Amino acid sequence: MKIGFIGLGHMGSGIAANLLKSGHELTVWNRSSAPAEALGEKGAHVAHAPKEALQGEILFSMLATDSAVRDVGLDGPLLEHAKTGLVHVNLATISIDFARHLAQAHDEKGLGYVAAPVFGRSDVAAAGQLTIIAAGASASVAKVRPVLEQVSRRLAVAGEAPEQANLFKIAGNFMLAAAIESMGEAFALVRKGGVDAQLFQDVLSQSLFACPVYQGYGNAIVNAKFEPAGFSVKLGMKDVRLALDAARELSVPLPLASLVHDHFIEATVAGLGDKDWASLGGLVASKAGL
Amino acid sequence: MKIGFIGLGHMGSGIAANLLKSGHELTVWNRSSAPAEALGEKGAHVAHAPKEALQGEILFSMLATDSAVRDVGLDGPLLEHAKTGLVHVNLATISIDFARHLAQAHDEKGLGYVAAPVFGRSDVAAAGQLTIIAAGASASVAKVRPVLEQVSRRLAVAGEAPEQANLFKIAGNFMLAAAIESMGEAFALVRKGGVDAQLFQDVLSQSLFACPVYQGYGNAIVNAKFEPAGFSVKLGMKDVRLALDAARELSVPLPLASLVHDHFIEATVAGLGDKDWASLGGLVASKAGL
Amino acid sequence: MKIGFIGLGHMGSGIAANLLKSGHELTVWNRSSAPAEALGEKGAHVAHAPKEALQGEILFSMLATDSAVRDVGLDGPLLEHAKTGLVHVNLATISIDFARHLAQAHDEKGLGYVAAPVFGRSDVAAAGQLTIIAAGASASVAKVRPVLEQVSRRLAVAGEAPEQANLFKIAGNFMLAAAIESMGEAFALVRKGGVDAQLFQDVLSQSLFACPVYQGYGNAIVNAKFEPAGFSVKLGMKDVRLALDAARELSVPLPLASLVHDHFIEATVAGLGDKDWASLGGLVASKAGL
Amino acid sequence: MKIGFIGLGHMGSGIAANLLKSGHELTVWNRSSAPAEALGEKGAHVAHAPKEALQGEILFSMLATDSAVRDVGLDGPLLEHAKTGLVHVNLATISIDFARHLAQAHDEKGLGYVAAPVFGRSDVAAAGQLTIIAAGASASVAKVRPVLEQVSRRLAVAGEAPEQANLFKIAGNFMLAAAIESMGEAFALVRKGGVDAQLFQDVLSQSLFACPVYQGYGNAIVNAKFEPAGFSVKLGMKDVRLALDAARELSVPLPLASLVHDHFIEATVAGLGDKDWASLGGLVASKAGL
Repeated sequence: MKIGFIGLGHMGSGIAANLLKSGHELTVWNRSSAPAEALGEKGAHVAHAPKEALQGEILFSMLATDSAVRDVGLDGPLLEHAKTGLVHVNLATISIDFARHLAQAHDEKGLGYVAAPVFGRSDVAAAGQLTIIAAGASASVAKVRPVLEQVSRRLAVAGEAPEQANLFKIAGNFMLAAAIESMGEAFALVRKGGVDAQLFQDVLSQSLFACPVYQGYGNAIVNAKFEPAGFSVKLGMKDVRLALDAARELSVPLPLASLVHDHFIEATVAGLGDKDWASLGGLVASKAGL
Repeated sequence: MKIGFIGLGHMGSGIAANLLKSGHELTVWNRSSAPAEALGEKGAHVAHAPKEALQGEILFSMLATDSAVRDVGLDGPLLEHAKTGLVHVNLATISIDFARHLAQAHDEKGLGYVAAPVFGRSDVAAAGQLTIIAAGASASVAKVRPVLEQVSRRLAVAGEAPEQANLFKIAGNFMLAAAIESMGEAFALVRKGGVDAQLFQDVLSQSLFACPVYQGYGNAIVNAKFEPAGFSVKLGMKDVRLALDAARELSVPLPLASLVHDHFIEATVAGLGDKDWASLGGLVASKAGL
Repeated sequence: MKIGFIGLGHMGSGIAANLLKSGHELTVWNRSSAPAEALGEKGAHVAHAPKEALQGEILFSMLATDSAVRDVGLDGPLLEHAKTGLVHVNLATISIDFARHLAQAHDEKGLGYVAAPVFGRSDVAAAGQLTIIAAGASASVAKVRPVLEQVSRRLAVAGEAPEQANLFKIAGNFMLAAAIESMGEAFALVRKGGVDAQLFQDVLSQSLFACPVYQGYGNAIVNAKFEPAGFSVKLGMKDVRLALDAARELSVPLPLASLVHDHFIEATVAGLGDKDWASLGGLVASKAGL
Repeated sequence: MKIGFIGLGHMGSGIAANLLKSGHELTVWNRSSAPAEALGEKGAHVAHAPKEALQGEILFSMLATDSAVRDVGLDGPLLEHAKTGLVHVNLATISIDFARHLAQAHDEKGLGYVAAPVFGRSDVAAAGQLTIIAAGASASVAKVRPVLEQVSRRLAVAGEAPEQANLFKIAGNFMLAAAIESMGEAFALVRKGGVDAQLFQDVLSQSLFACPVYQGYGNAIVNAKFEPAGFSVKLGMKDVRLALDAARELSVPLPLASLVHDHFIEATVAGLGDKDWASLGGLVASKAGL
């Protein structure tokens, strides 16, 4: 299939490479040219302008912020140049509001829009093992589903409104932040009581909590290893804000999300903004004098 | 080995049965006689008085509350009748303070005291798959270790002060409560946005959160299945209180534990005290109007 | 002085009437005509279109929401018709962001913009006893100061950036909400212990807390008198949100504001949105089973 | 009337001096002799042993901690020596549980027990301007009422169970702590927005919050003046704990008290334990990087 791809950070590059492996004809564009050229060597066509990436049947984008989406024009102007029938698959985690805005902007141009945020870091993306949450009009989702399945371990369809996929992803990221806070508090408690936190972490993450979140973040917190940041405090704070914003609109009290958000602010003030968000656990320890 | 066992609820009976299977000579006592007689049929000696259970090398006890321990006299009077060199293994989750008190009471009588709270419900106990956290003087722990290993999947030694095992267990139970709160909030958020909570639960508990806590409690919350109670709101609240009490003594701020504790009170007021503590997730949903 | 006034709700009408009493030549406009005509009978000129209110030296506006400001065009279009040198005094409580936006829109047209939110309800406004917090460029503030002093008990200048007055007001309203929450919890506690909450309220609000906030809201909570709403849950929630939004931008952890905000959401879900925001205290009581 | 007085700290000495002024025959005892001798010079009889203070019609005590009460034997042993019909007025803020325990201990000896905690610091006590909250059996309260009225500005009777007066006092102190937290957050917010916190404090504490709590603590927080401690972080934390303990027993969710308590722990860890509890406001500022 003829596919375009805009936004080639670590995540995007990994997914794009898998699209190539699956045999698709890929046109890539990135603000800085190096990542695009790297994919060019693997067989992708390197676009000179973003609009070239909109001439296929599907456009993937993985742009980190709302303003990056606006800068490239995907909220409107660039869509003028899209091939008829194009479906845009937005892989990024964005706000409910912006998801609605983008969906409408595409609809007005007769284009499809599928929100498809992912769970998994860049190594998972490169291995084709992402979990993808998709949402959008049935016809659009049906069109992109086979391709999404090629680059993921699991594809779940959250609903027919694109923002539902974003809500799904945001709620999941909130659960991650909550788990980090929870470990931070528990570890601080046992440590101040003279118990070896690594033993505590090992026992729990090999039994009741034997899953990637508790194993990975638990070890990071116990060892205060917050660099390099797989996902930074700033980004974590952004996602919890998105959860709180959605909760305002949907009238859902989220006291735990509020608590975590205030701790993220405190972490940022303490200079941890660019550290891994597991450092929230370190902040909790420091409050206990550890 | 000659072993006594006091307290034959679901948990205690399962562990006692495994001690029998391992070939130990077991003397059992329980306030109500039926559970003791059931073990009697499996080969245990049924004691007529608690003191008979203190004539072996090890005494196990699994009594649910501090007052049950006091009623039977294990905080002092009963110890007068213990065989020299007896080591008491207390399997229950008790407060830091009471653990210290019991340790001292045993020490004054020249007896050993090992705190050995467990992770796992009664079916896990029956299957010999518990995780046991032990703490106490090295010699005492060394004596009971082989027996504890026979009835568990894993034995971890938390320290030389018995209360350290209780702190370990309490901190672990707090993490469970935090996970329940976190799921309750996340599920409420996605549901009010029109996303299928079961799908959300399935995706997360089969990927990032693929572990017993999130699988079991997540499904209970999604399906509002809070009966029969595997572990009740009242017991959960008790354990979070023990965590908060320990946090006071050790000077550890635990805002998430505080939040969960207030929700437990609210759940009790709402009549959920005897429901499974997963109903905390139901409380969160009701606050969102679900 | 020749003055215009747009937005004649209870608050606006009271202030406008005082401007008339002070001898100013007043042109008034309101979406619905009745309040304007009422002031017309007191000597005001009733405008047929908003732009007529921008032909004096000062324009006052008291519009409840951002969208009301936009509907009337005060964020731009209407300013085209303003008399040269006009200073716009915005009496409403708006967000930091919108305050900046309005300030810039006026600046681009060469007009002055002074944010001047007020403390006090409509009876206080009518009595000329408001506390006004003003902020804006020195020259603009100097121009409007004498007039503001005529209609208030106290005028405080918060800074040269208009949004500083809004921040001041928002922070003050947060303190009000916090006081309500605090009373709600304290009253619930003493009531469940069999103490007369009215006695408790009387003693405290006549000693340590002998001030309008604790006297007025305290009695409302004790007597569960939440109608008519002097200031509704919805409006209170809006202002606490503005505080949280400002806190995000300025990196200030506000856990108490977060707590109150979650309770406001819960109150809205419980159908209290249009009740007085003192009903937050009623919500706290209901959580305790009262 | 013949009255005894045990516990002559700043508060106790002031009240005792006022009893002397009112013409009562006073027998005083204190662990260290200096304060007793000072009152001796004003006409009090200085006891050589605590039991001498129990030979009148009323015994006042003002002992800071439960253990001080126990050390002197007022929970039992000392009561053996009391004159028949003695009513003991306990002015200290103690826990609900300990209040019940003391009431019963007195009852068993046929003595009266009135809990009478006070609002006001030592200067207020010396000026005879305290607010006293009394509770106890009607006959006992009736007996001591005239004397309490002589040394206070206001006497309120909270109920017939002594612990109700303690609950009243504890709930009041929680409200104070909540006000401090609230000011701390609001001041941090305006300061980071460039607004003069002193101006903010002045405006609010001279209008809506024109009362001693907001005036006194507000100025302390704005000026970071936390020494000498009128009431320390440690004592404030103790009282909020008493509130949380009462809330556990009475099933009242107190999320704001929980929040404040966690901040008190954090303040203690940060070395502020002996500073005035207004330093909670300083803690909040430091979290915001101020």
